[in-house]
Amino acid sequence: MDALAALKTRRSVRAYRTDPVSPSIIEDIVDCGRLAATARNIQPWEFVVVTHAVTRKKLADMIDTGRFIAEAPVCIVVFCRDVKYYLEDGSAAIQNILLAAHAHGLGSCWVAGDKKPYCAAVAQMLNAPPDQKLIGLVAIGRPAKPASVPPKRALQEVLHRERF
Amino acid sequence: MDALAALKTRRSVRAYRTDPVSPSIIEDIVDCGRLAATARNIQPWEFVVVTHAVTRKKLADMIDTGRFIAEAPVCIVVFCRDVKYYLEDGSAAIQNILLAAHAHGLGSCWVAGDKKPYCAAVAQMLNAPPDQKLIGLVAIGRPAKPASVPPKRALQEVLHRERF
Repeated sequence: MDALAALKTRRSVRAYRTDPVSPSIIEDIVDCGRLAATARNIQPWEFVVVTHAVTRKKLADMIDTGRFIAEAPVCIVVFCRDVKYYLEDGSAAIQNILLAAHAHGLGSCWVAGDKKPYCAAVAQMLNAPPDQKLIGLVAIGRPAKPASVPPKRALQEVLHRERF
Repeated sequence: MDALAALKTRRSVRAYRTDPVSPSIIEDIVDCGRLAATARNIQPWEFVVVTHAVTRKKLADMIDTGRFIAEAPVCIVVFCRDVKYYLEDGSAAIQNILLAAHAHGLGSCWVAGDKKPYCAAVAQMLNAPPDQKLIGLVAIGRPAKPASVPPKRALQEVLHRERF
């Protein structure tokens, strides 16, 4: 897939087929995540690839949105060490993961982590060390139906020239 | 450029040629930024495209890293409205901008905004409304020399299977 097309056509997918994704594709997606921009090259991220159905069901039960994590065959849970720019770095890595999944013909959806009441429960269930902060959970799999296209603010509304 | 190749080969560029970037390419890069993932589809972002040399010099003088903003022909300053996930959304948009620049054969570098002491000064200089938070400043232009390739943590170090 062309890079610019990938950037423009990625959409959040919230309904998944349950058939598995090959391990080599999952690894390639995480590979793209670890190569995101990172302040001071600290790379504070860790990626937990959850495919076991029981674990995904437990995660889905824990969180208030993203019930589809129980259906999607893969959930990549992204943590970062608690450094100054942990949230910027972790978010950049997740955006890369979403794009890599899309480039592989898969759907994905970013479920929020940071600031959510279930952070500690997710971290504990996945045996995360105490210095790890949950950035988000990314569901990945084949879309069960075409992704919806929500309305987007127009380019000329968000683009300002030289100043506001 | 292939999407997966773009995700894996983007690097931070800190030395730029001063020749300008065409307005249509700049618009296309911002277009990719505005189509990043965004919590609840709020799209809290605003993109200020700064090309005037005097303004870029003032920005470069204001900030503690990113002196190259004075040389690179374009600086896209990214702000977000102060919503719950402003930093996740703004960071995802910046990652898209970096990738779009790379796909257009341009170099880029993300200079931190949020949490920096110069946030208020940058916002004031660019006439930002009071509810806008500075996410970062992205220098864009043709690389003056090949980007360095900093050491990266190996895939098998950052990838965890089912749990830590």
